[in-house]
Amino acid sequence: MAATKQLMDYDVDEAVDVFALLKSADVRTAKNGKQYIALVFEDQSGEISGKYWDASAEDVKNYVAGRVIHLQGKRENYQTHPQIKIFHLRLTGPGEPADPDQFIERAPMSRTEMEEYINQTIFEITQPTWNRLVRKLLAEFQDQFFTFPAAKSNHHAFQGGLAFHTISILKLAHSVVAQYSDLNAPLLYAGAILHDLGKTIELSGPKSTTYTLAGNLIGHIVLIDGELVRACDPLKLDPQAEDVLLLRHMILSHHGLLEYGSPVRPALREADVLHQLDELDASIMMLDTVVGHTEPGEFSERVFAMDGRRFYRPTTDTPQPKTD
Amino acid sequence: MAATKQLMDYDVDEAVDVFALLKSADVRTAKNGKQYIALVFEDQSGEISGKYWDASAEDVKNYVAGRVIHLQGKRENYQTHPQIKIFHLRLTGPGEPADPDQFIERAPMSRTEMEEYINQTIFEITQPTWNRLVRKLLAEFQDQFFTFPAAKSNHHAFQGGLAFHTISILKLAHSVVAQYSDLNAPLLYAGAILHDLGKTIELSGPKSTTYTLAGNLIGHIVLIDGELVRACDPLKLDPQAEDVLLLRHMILSHHGLLEYGSPVRPALREADVLHQLDELDASIMMLDTVVGHTEPGEFSERVFAMDGRRFYRPTTDTPQPKTD
Amino acid sequence: MAATKQLMDYDVDEAVDVFALLKSADVRTAKNGKQYIALVFEDQSGEISGKYWDASAEDVKNYVAGRVIHLQGKRENYQTHPQIKIFHLRLTGPGEPADPDQFIERAPMSRTEMEEYINQTIFEITQPTWNRLVRKLLAEFQDQFFTFPAAKSNHHAFQGGLAFHTISILKLAHSVVAQYSDLNAPLLYAGAILHDLGKTIELSGPKSTTYTLAGNLIGHIVLIDGELVRACDPLKLDPQAEDVLLLRHMILSHHGLLEYGSPVRPALREADVLHQLDELDASIMMLDTVVGHTEPGEFSERVFAMDGRRFYRPTTDTPQPKTD
Amino acid sequence: MAATKQLMDYDVDEAVDVFALLKSADVRTAKNGKQYIALVFEDQSGEISGKYWDASAEDVKNYVAGRVIHLQGKRENYQTHPQIKIFHLRLTGPGEPADPDQFIERAPMSRTEMEEYINQTIFEITQPTWNRLVRKLLAEFQDQFFTFPAAKSNHHAFQGGLAFHTISILKLAHSVVAQYSDLNAPLLYAGAILHDLGKTIELSGPKSTTYTLAGNLIGHIVLIDGELVRACDPLKLDPQAEDVLLLRHMILSHHGLLEYGSPVRPALREADVLHQLDELDASIMMLDTVVGHTEPGEFSERVFAMDGRRFYRPTTDTPQPKTD
Amino acid sequence: MAATKQLMDYDVDEAVDVFALLKSADVRTAKNGKQYIALVFEDQSGEISGKYWDASAEDVKNYVAGRVIHLQGKRENYQTHPQIKIFHLRLTGPGEPADPDQFIERAPMSRTEMEEYINQTIFEITQPTWNRLVRKLLAEFQDQFFTFPAAKSNHHAFQGGLAFHTISILKLAHSVVAQYSDLNAPLLYAGAILHDLGKTIELSGPKSTTYTLAGNLIGHIVLIDGELVRACDPLKLDPQAEDVLLLRHMILSHHGLLEYGSPVRPALREADVLHQLDELDASIMMLDTVVGHTEPGEFSERVFAMDGRRFYRPTTDTPQPKTD
Amino acid sequence: MAATKQLMDYDVDEAVDVFALLKSADVRTAKNGKQYIALVFEDQSGEISGKYWDASAEDVKNYVAGRVIHLQGKRENYQTHPQIKIFHLRLTGPGEPADPDQFIERAPMSRTEMEEYINQTIFEITQPTWNRLVRKLLAEFQDQFFTFPAAKSNHHAFQGGLAFHTISILKLAHSVVAQYSDLNAPLLYAGAILHDLGKTIELSGPKSTTYTLAGNLIGHIVLIDGELVRACDPLKLDPQAEDVLLLRHMILSHHGLLEYGSPVRPALREADVLHQLDELDASIMMLDTVVGHTEPGEFSERVFAMDGRRFYRPTTDTPQPKTD
Repeated sequence: MAATKQLMDYDVDEAVDVFALLKSADVRTAKNGKQYIALVFEDQSGEISGKYWDASAEDVKNYVAGRVIHLQGKRENYQTHPQIKIFHLRLTGPGEPADPDQFIERAPMSRTEMEEYINQTIFEITQPTWNRLVRKLLAEFQDQFFTFPAAKSNHHAFQGGLAFHTISILKLAHSVVAQYSDLNAPLLYAGAILHDLGKTIELSGPKSTTYTLAGNLIGHIVLIDGELVRACDPLKLDPQAEDVLLLRHMILSHHGLLEYGSPVRPALREADVLHQLDELDASIMMLDTVVGHTEPGEFSERVFAMDGRRFYRPTTDTPQPKTD
Repeated sequence: MAATKQLMDYDVDEAVDVFALLKSADVRTAKNGKQYIALVFEDQSGEISGKYWDASAEDVKNYVAGRVIHLQGKRENYQTHPQIKIFHLRLTGPGEPADPDQFIERAPMSRTEMEEYINQTIFEITQPTWNRLVRKLLAEFQDQFFTFPAAKSNHHAFQGGLAFHTISILKLAHSVVAQYSDLNAPLLYAGAILHDLGKTIELSGPKSTTYTLAGNLIGHIVLIDGELVRACDPLKLDPQAEDVLLLRHMILSHHGLLEYGSPVRPALREADVLHQLDELDASIMMLDTVVGHTEPGEFSERVFAMDGRRFYRPTTDTPQPKTD
Repeated sequence: MAATKQLMDYDVDEAVDVFALLKSADVRTAKNGKQYIALVFEDQSGEISGKYWDASAEDVKNYVAGRVIHLQGKRENYQTHPQIKIFHLRLTGPGEPADPDQFIERAPMSRTEMEEYINQTIFEITQPTWNRLVRKLLAEFQDQFFTFPAAKSNHHAFQGGLAFHTISILKLAHSVVAQYSDLNAPLLYAGAILHDLGKTIELSGPKSTTYTLAGNLIGHIVLIDGELVRACDPLKLDPQAEDVLLLRHMILSHHGLLEYGSPVRPALREADVLHQLDELDASIMMLDTVVGHTEPGEFSERVFAMDGRRFYRPTTDTPQPKTD
Repeated sequence: MAATKQLMDYDVDEAVDVFALLKSADVRTAKNGKQYIALVFEDQSGEISGKYWDASAEDVKNYVAGRVIHLQGKRENYQTHPQIKIFHLRLTGPGEPADPDQFIERAPMSRTEMEEYINQTIFEITQPTWNRLVRKLLAEFQDQFFTFPAAKSNHHAFQGGLAFHTISILKLAHSVVAQYSDLNAPLLYAGAILHDLGKTIELSGPKSTTYTLAGNLIGHIVLIDGELVRACDPLKLDPQAEDVLLLRHMILSHHGLLEYGSPVRPALREADVLHQLDELDASIMMLDTVVGHTEPGEFSERVFAMDGRRFYRPTTDTPQPKTD
Repeated sequence: MAATKQLMDYDVDEAVDVFALLKSADVRTAKNGKQYIALVFEDQSGEISGKYWDASAEDVKNYVAGRVIHLQGKRENYQTHPQIKIFHLRLTGPGEPADPDQFIERAPMSRTEMEEYINQTIFEITQPTWNRLVRKLLAEFQDQFFTFPAAKSNHHAFQGGLAFHTISILKLAHSVVAQYSDLNAPLLYAGAILHDLGKTIELSGPKSTTYTLAGNLIGHIVLIDGELVRACDPLKLDPQAEDVLLLRHMILSHHGLLEYGSPVRPALREADVLHQLDELDASIMMLDTVVGHTEPGEFSERVFAMDGRRFYRPTTDTPQPKTD
Repeated sequence: MAATKQLMDYDVDEAVDVFALLKSADVRTAKNGKQYIALVFEDQSGEISGKYWDASAEDVKNYVAGRVIHLQGKRENYQTHPQIKIFHLRLTGPGEPADPDQFIERAPMSRTEMEEYINQTIFEITQPTWNRLVRKLLAEFQDQFFTFPAAKSNHHAFQGGLAFHTISILKLAHSVVAQYSDLNAPLLYAGAILHDLGKTIELSGPKSTTYTLAGNLIGHIVLIDGELVRACDPLKLDPQAEDVLLLRHMILSHHGLLEYGSPVRPALREADVLHQLDELDASIMMLDTVVGHTEPGEFSERVFAMDGRRFYRPTTDTPQPKTD
C-alpha cells in the first residue's frame, strides 16, 4: 500500500498515497468559526501544502511539525500554487516509516565529499593571512557550516545547503579563474568560502529554520565581519592591514548593492566576480526547482525572489550534445 | 596694514587684504598651456578659493598647502561660487603670523569642555555592558575622537568636529528623553557616543583629511562594529548577547537607509531617534554655514549634500523672542 | 464582574471581560454564505478587532458603531495582528456604562492646558505679520484645532491629537532654538502652529473620522494656504510680501518632499527644521504605541507608515538615569 | 550691407551678417586671466550664443543686454550646440535698426486675435461659478496674461507665449470634447484658461524673465489657487463648495505627478485630460523648435526638458496629404 | 418576466432580474470545504461578478463560460467592487434568449464603418513605402484587426476594440495635424494604424482572450516589427532604408518608456505624438467606464492601470455648451 | 630612437618616445581664442589623449585620424585621467612605421582560431531549427561578425571584439552546462552566438566606430530579431513556432531589464543565464583594463559603465596557486 512515488512526482488530479513528514502545522480558524490545520508536507522530493478541515482537539495534538504521517488525497492547484486536497491522514504505526530524517531534503553531496572539496580548496589559498583566517573561522563554525541551509526559504533551503552553495560558487570560481588569468584566485576562493558563513549565526539551525535576534538586528554580512575582526587578535593580525581589509571587503560587498544590504559596493575585481557568481548559482538553483515543478508548455507561478517573474517550461524536445 | 577682518567678512567686489593659511594648492595647466595654481585660502571664518595665474617654478615651490600667506585681491563670485581674484600674494615674513594652527577652523567648544560633557554623559549610561563598552572604545580612540573632524567636507569638517557633532546630538537627545519618557536613555546616549567613532579609522586625521584604505573598503559604520566585537573578548562579553546586539544595532542602523550605507534599517525606537537627531544636527550645521555665506534677499548656491537644494536668506527683520 | 482592566492590558490567551465602545461595525458575508460582523472595540487604552460570527438580523441592528457593549472573550493573535475571539457580547444595561465619550482615546493634556501652551507661544511670535495671521486663523478654526485628531489613523489619531501633536513639535522647537541660536524662532513657532491646521478642513471631525471632499481634491497643505491668503484682505496684508511668503512656505514645504505632497521643498532653514521635527514627533508617537503593544523579546507587526519596518522590544532591563 | 536673412537662417560655416538684439551679456574671466563677454543674440527667428574675446572696459560698457548691434561672423557648432564665431561687432548707428522690440520673438497670433479667442471660449463656460471665477481672475491679470511668456526657457518662452499656449490647449480641448462627448466641456475650458495663470506671479515679466521670490517659495500652481480662494469673498462663493473645489483641483493637479509639483494627482476625468493636453502642446512646440534647428539626416542636441532625448530630422521627402 | 434593464443599470440594493451571458466560471473550494462557482456575468452594458454557493456537481457542469442564463438577485458592493448576490440562477429555455453573441460588448462602430474609415485614411498615406507596408500588413491580419479586442482587460477590451482604438487615435491625429502643420501626417497615420497590430498575434482572439506564447515571450511590439521586416522581401524593400526605419521606429517606441516595453524611446516628433495620443485615448476610454460605474458624489474604486488612482464623479449639474 | 615600449607602458612623469596612430583628432578653440587639436593616440597597448596647443593651419591638415605619428612628451594625469603632455609631434617618414593596422588594438585570438571555435560550437547545437538559423544568420553577417568591435567604447571595443566577446561567453556557458546539467545547452549556445549579432547592423564598422541610423532608431536587439524572422521564409520556418520563439526570446531578453533595452525580461532559465554570463564577461574585461591602468595602492578613475564605481588595485603580493 505504501507508495514508492514521492510527493512531487504526482500530476494534477492524480490520487496521492505517500508517507511524508509534517514540516509545519498551523492551527487556524476558518471563516465559519471552525478550526483547521494548515499543513506543509515534506519528503526528499520537495514540499507541498494542504488543509486539514474541521480539526478536533486530538487532531491538533497529533498533527504537529516533525511527525511522520501517511497521507491519502489528490494533487490540486490553488491559484497556480500546488497543494494536496486531503482525503485521509494518520500518524504512522509500527512497521511503517517513523524517522523524520528520512524525509528531509538535503544537499546532493555527502558531508564527507563537501569537507574534502573545501579542504582541497584551502590548499589553493596560498596567501598566508587569508589561509589562516579561513582555517580559523571554519574551525569555529565547522559543524554549522556543513549542516545549515543557505537560507530560510528560496535557494538552497535544505540541510547542508550552505556548504553546497559555497562549493557550487567555488566550482564556478575555478572555471572563471582558468578563463581570466589576471584574477587573484586565492582572494576569490577565500572570499567565496567566508561570504555566507555569517548565516551560521543569522539562522537558528538546520530544521524549522528561523532568524535569530542577531540575524535580525545585525545580519549575516556584518556578523561574520565581526567574528573575523575578533579572530585577528589570537592570530596576531591587524584588522586594518591591507590583506585583512581585502578579505573583509570581499565579504562585506558580496550583495553587490547597498539596497541589498552590503554596506559597501564591490571595489575589487574579485569582489565583483564573487557577487556575480553568488547570484548566478542562487538563481540557477531556484529556477531548477521552479521550472522542475512546472508542466511543459506552462509558465511557473511568480518567483518572488526574482522580481516576481514567471518562467516558461518549453515542450521542445532537445537532444543534449555530448560534452565530454 | 594687516587686516583684522577675516576671509568671509568681505562683501562681493570689496578689496581683500588678509593673512591666511593655504589649505590646498593644486598646480594645473591652463587652456593656453601655461601653469596656474588653484588655491584654497583658510582662516577661522571659513575657506574660499582663488586662482594664481602664470605661476613660475618658484611660485609652485612656495605656495603649497600648510603655508601662511599674505593676500591682496578682490572678493568675487564665479557662477554663484565665492572666490578671490588675486592681485598680490606672498609668504609671510618676520613679525608676521606664521603658525598654521592660528588659521584653522575648530569646534566652538574647547577640548576640556567637550571631555567634561562626554564624561558627564557616561555617568548616565547606567546599563553596565553599554557603560563598559563605551569607556573601553573611547579610551582606545580618545585622542582622535577629540581632534578629528566629523567629515572630509560638508558638516563639522573642522578640527574637533567629530566630538562637537557627537555632543550636539547628545544635547538634542537629552531634550528628547525629557519630552518622551518611554525612551531608553542609556541606550540612546551610548549609541550617540559611538555612532561616528569609526570615523577615527575612516579618516586620515584632523588636517588635509582624506579617506584611508579602511575607510574606502569597509566604511566607518562597520569599522567601529568590528572594534566593538573585538573589545568583547577582554571585557568577557558575548558579542551575540542581547544587550551587546542592541548597542551594535544602534551604530549599524544610524544612517537610516540601506542606500545610505547602513546594513540594517533601524528596528529599535532609540535607533530611529538617533538617526533622526544625527540628520537634524548635521543639516542645521550645514545650513548655518550656507545661509551665513549668502546675502540677504538671495538664494544660496546649491547644497550638494541636501539634494542640491538652494536656501533663501530673508531680508525680513525679526526681533528674537526672549527664551529664558 | 465588570473589569477594571482595559482592552490593551490583556496578554495573549488571557480571558477578556470588559466594557468597551464599538468603534466600527461592518457586516460581511463569510465564505460559507452566512453573515458576520467585523467589529473594532475601543477604550482609552487603544483599539482591537474581533469577529462576531453567524450574526442574526437583530445582532446587525444592535451592534453598530457608537454603542457601548460588554464583551467576554479571549485575547488572540491572527497573523501577528492582535484580536479578540468573542465568546459573549451584549449591549450594556441600566447601571452599567453607557456614555461613549468615556471610552474614547484622547490627548494626554487637557484642552485648557493645551490652550494655555499655544497662547503662551503666540507671545513669542514677535514678528507682527506672523503674529496676526496666526491669531486670525486660530480664531477661525479654534474649536476644530483643539478637538480634531491629527490623522485618520497612524499617529495622534485621537481626540485633541491635532493640538497635542502641534504642541509636541513646539516643545521640540523650543529645545532646538535654545541649542541653535541662529534660527528664527518666531518663524519656526508660527509655522509649527499653522502647519497642520488645514486638517480641520481635510478631516470630517473628531469621531468616525473620514476625508472630506476638500481633503481628497485639495489636501490640507493647500487648503490652509488658501485660507491664509484669504485672511490677508481683512488684515490688509499683501499675500506676496516677503514676510507672508515666508510663512506660506513654512506650511507648504513641511512634508519635505514633493512625493509626499508638498508642492515645494524646504528652502528656508526653519522650514527644513519644521519638517524634521514633524517627522520626529510623529514617528516617536507611532513607535510608542507599536512597541507598547509588543511583547518583550518580540518584533512588532509591520508598521505601514514607516516603510513596513518591524520594531523590536528588548528584554534587557535598564535602570533609567536621573535626568533632573 | 544689412542682411534680410535672420540669425537662424544660416548654415554651419556660412558667413553671418545681421542686425540683432543682445538678449544677455555676461562678463567672464578666461583661463588666461583676460576678460571676455558671453553674448546671446536674438531676433524673431530665435537665439544663438557667441563669445567676444579680449573685451576692453569700453566693450563691457557697450555690449549689454537690450542693445541692438550689427554682427559679422561665422555660424559654427560647439559640441553640437550652435554658436557664432564673432569677427566684428558694433552698436548700430543712425539710419540703422535701434528698437529692441523689433527683434523679440513673439506669439504667432496677435493680442487682439488671442483676446477674441479667449472671450469666445468664456461664453462656452456655461456653469456660473466657473464663468465668474474665470472672468474675475482674468480681469485681474489681464495684461500679464497676454504679454508674459509661458516659461523662462523651453517651450513658449516668448512674448505672449502664456496666452498662446493656453489657446493651443483650448483648441485641442475642443477637438477632444467633440470626440468624447461625456467630458464636461465647461470644466475643461475653465481649467485650461486658469491652469498657468499663476505664472503671471511666478515670473518677473515678458523680458529678461526670471523667477520672483513668490515663484521660488510658492510656485505658480499654489499662487493662483490662493488668488482664486481670495476671489471667492467678493464673489460670495464658498471656497469649499463642490463646484469651486472642482475648478481648484483642475489647476492644482495639472502637472500630473506629485514629483512634478502638483500637490494632488488628477482625480477627475477632465483634470487628467487637461494634464495630457498641456504636455502634448508643450512637447510639440518644443520639438518644432528643436527639430527645426537640426539638419536633415542629423540628430538634435539633447532636449533637457524631455529626459535628455535627442530627436532625428529625417531626409525622407513626404508629400503632405490634402486634409481639407 | 424578462428584463429590459441591463446588468449595469441597477443601483446598489436593487433587485436584479436579467438574462445574461456567463463570461467566466471558476469552481473553487470555500474555507468550509464546500465548492462554489465564481461567476462573471456579461451583457452589452458591461460585466459584474457573483458567487454561486454550495454548487452541486450538476451546477458545475451547467454553469460554464459561454452559456446564457437567467439571473435573479441583488446588486451589492463588496469592498467598493460591485457584485451580484445570487438568489436564483438557471439556464435559459425555449423561447428565451440563447445566442451568446447578443450579450457580448462590442465596438460602438460597425465593422463596415470602421473599414471605410481605415481605407479612407490609407489614401492620406502619400509616401509610397509606408502606404505599401500598411496595405500589405493589414491585408495579412485583416480579419483579426477588425474583431480582436485592444487588450485582455482595461481599455477597449471588447470585440472590435483594436480597430476602434486605432480609429480613435487616427481621429485625434487628424485634429493634431490640422493644428500643428509641421508634423508629417502620412508617417503619423501609418504609425497609428500599425502600432498595435501585433496584438493580433499577442492575443488569442476576440473571446475568452488570453496571451499566446508569442505574446508572452516576444510581445506585440516586436512581433509586428518582425512581420514588417518579413514583408519587406516580397515588396522588394530594404528593412534598413530610412523610410522603413522611420515606420519601424514609430511602432517600436510607442510605449514611450523602456520600462513600459518599448525597446527605444521616441526620437521622432511623430513618434512622441503617437505615444501621447495612444495614452490619451486609452485613458479617456478607461475613465469613461470607471466614472460611469460610480455614483455621483462618490470616488470610484482604484484604477489599477492608472497608478491605482481613484476618480471622483461630481454632483454639480453642468449645462453642456453648444459646440456645433 | 624608435621606442619598443608602448603607450600604456609609461609611468606618470616618465618621458614618452613612441610611434603611434592618431585614433581621433578634433580641432577646438581654446578660451584664449586660439586653435588646438584634441588628439587620441593609439597602439596595441591601449589609447591615451593629449592636447596639441597653438595648432597652425598645416598642423590641422596633417594631424588627422588615421595617420601614424612620432610622439615625444611626458605621461601625466589630468584629474585622475591619464594623458600625454606633448613636447614634439611629427608624421612618420621613410623607413619608419606607416601602416595604421599595426597600431590597432585587436582581439587576443586570431580570426582563424575564432572561426574554428564557433564552428565547433555549432556542432553542439543539436536542435535542427536553432542550428539552421544560427548557420544562416552567421553566413549573412560572417565578415562583420569576426571584425566588428563589441561596442563603440567600454568593453571589447577593439577589432574582432564582437566575436571574441561571444566566444568568452560560450566558454563560460560550457563550464556552466557542465556544472548544471538540467540546462538546455543547444539553446544556450545558439542564443549566445546570436545575442549581439545585431551589432553588425547597429555599428558602422571596425574603425572610427559610430552608431548607424538603424542602430539609433531600432537598436541591435530588435535589428537581429527582424533578420531572424526574415530568415524564416527561405528556411520554411514559422516565426511563431515554439522553437523559433525560444531562440528569439533568448536574444530579446539578454539585457535582463526593460530599462536596459530588452523588450521582455528573461522567462527561460537559459535566457537568465545568458544575461548573467554576458554581464560577467563584459565586466571582467572592463575591469581588467581599468585596474591594469591603475597604480598598485591606488583607486582607478570612476568606471562610468559600472555605476561610476572606482576600483582598487592592491599592493598585496599573492602567489597564484597551481591550477592544472
